[in-house]
Amino acid sequence: MNKKLNKVSACILIIGNEILSGRTQDSNILYISKWLNTLGVKVEEVRIIPDLEEIIVATVNETRKKFNYVFTTGGIGPTHDDITAESISKAFNLNYEIHKEAFKLLEKYYKPGEFSKGRQRMTKMPSKAKLILNPTSGAPGFNVENVFCLPGVPSIMQSMLGSLKSQISGGKPILSKTMNLRTVESEIAKDLKTVQDENQEVEIGSYPFFRAGKLGVSIVIRSEEKTKIDHCYKKILDFINKKKIELVNIDRE
Amino acid sequence: MNKKLNKVSACILIIGNEILSGRTQDSNILYISKWLNTLGVKVEEVRIIPDLEEIIVATVNETRKKFNYVFTTGGIGPTHDDITAESISKAFNLNYEIHKEAFKLLEKYYKPGEFSKGRQRMTKMPSKAKLILNPTSGAPGFNVENVFCLPGVPSIMQSMLGSLKSQISGGKPILSKTMNLRTVESEIAKDLKTVQDENQEVEIGSYPFFRAGKLGVSIVIRSEEKTKIDHCYKKILDFINKKKIELVNIDRE
Repeated sequence: MNKKLNKVSACILIIGNEILSGRTQDSNILYISKWLNTLGVKVEEVRIIPDLEEIIVATVNETRKKFNYVFTTGGIGPTHDDITAESISKAFNLNYEIHKEAFKLLEKYYKPGEFSKGRQRMTKMPSKAKLILNPTSGAPGFNVENVFCLPGVPSIMQSMLGSLKSQISGGKPILSKTMNLRTVESEIAKDLKTVQDENQEVEIGSYPFFRAGKLGVSIVIRSEEKTKIDHCYKKILDFINKKKIELVNIDRE
Repeated sequence: MNKKLNKVSACILIIGNEILSGRTQDSNILYISKWLNTLGVKVEEVRIIPDLEEIIVATVNETRKKFNYVFTTGGIGPTHDDITAESISKAFNLNYEIHKEAFKLLEKYYKPGEFSKGRQRMTKMPSKAKLILNPTSGAPGFNVENVFCLPGVPSIMQSMLGSLKSQISGGKPILSKTMNLRTVESEIAKDLKTVQDENQEVEIGSYPFFRAGKLGVSIVIRSEEKTKIDHCYKKILDFINKKKIELVNIDRE
């Protein structure tokens, strides 16, 4: 149903064995998705892939053609398992070389004598890459065409994302309204389907929850148009009132 | 580098707009990955995809050929956005029909008169699907060949996963040891690369962290062989001692 919402699409690629192995709980997907929503860009797919060059190259080349934007996180540090920059160079058939501007930036950032070979490795990027500046810890990310490469550490990634705002051409921001009901899904399935069928251009999701020991269902209505959301909201309100289902609360984003 | 570890592979497919939109923080990836590690199965890729039939069908058909096992979560409830069972039927070219055993189970599970049409929808599955029993809330998941379909609600998913243990043929469990160091990555990059180069069959990852306001690096050593992990551990200990880098603590799994 996503096609109904928005034509500007994005894919997030999480690069890193630590997420695949279950060692680390990812939080970048949620952050980037929400940020892109506000710019009117819809995340259509996420892939988590290992630190393996052939897989990174193939995945980047597949997704950069399929989606308007690709955001990668992870693999841009100084150690042997940081192979994102080299892999992106291969994906775009570009040289993997020292980026002069990045080199100057880090040369200034570190104290004299501290700009070691290891740190210099972080200035190697695809030729013609544009830098994504890093206000937190010096080492920049980079962007080639529609692919934006960010670090995996959430606080650093978040501090860099803001600077990209002007480079993303999105649609209208995607709005949503959530109705939390004291019911079970099977009680509302039929009526909810009717509302969805009659409002094809709105995305209506239904998610059961267990909170404070009680069962409930969250109905999420998403659209670029507030009026369309409000129309579906009223239709849903009608049938839950008839069925005497309790509306616990409403969230709007 | 994952190929070094284990030949039994898995892919996790998270099906659901609520994860893509950033509304919900996924926790199933981490749980399933860790569980598979204990069975000697390595998650090689994760995809998060929308509730769209053509995408589910294409992704399932691509990944079930590429990996030994595919686990899906989400989309098996009673509402209009629950389309996993119908999509899996199409992917395998099987009829989407009422599963007699599932029907009997739910007929018993609900009180007389409560087994509504909405709830009956949850018994529609690919023909010949094997049930994955649900001790928490009645409605079962199912499995066709190497594809296992589980619900998205974490507590229910977790309660069902255990019953699959005997159906998964893994390799040796994957062991890991984590060394938390008080240093920065660039300090250890060169020596760590040497240890990795000399121990190709071990997976060594390096992850910077910020904890309690202090910088550090976690080195994660993974292998099926405890002796290989211990060998790398000693090699790393050697060079960090020489460099007078503090080893904060060690975790083993």
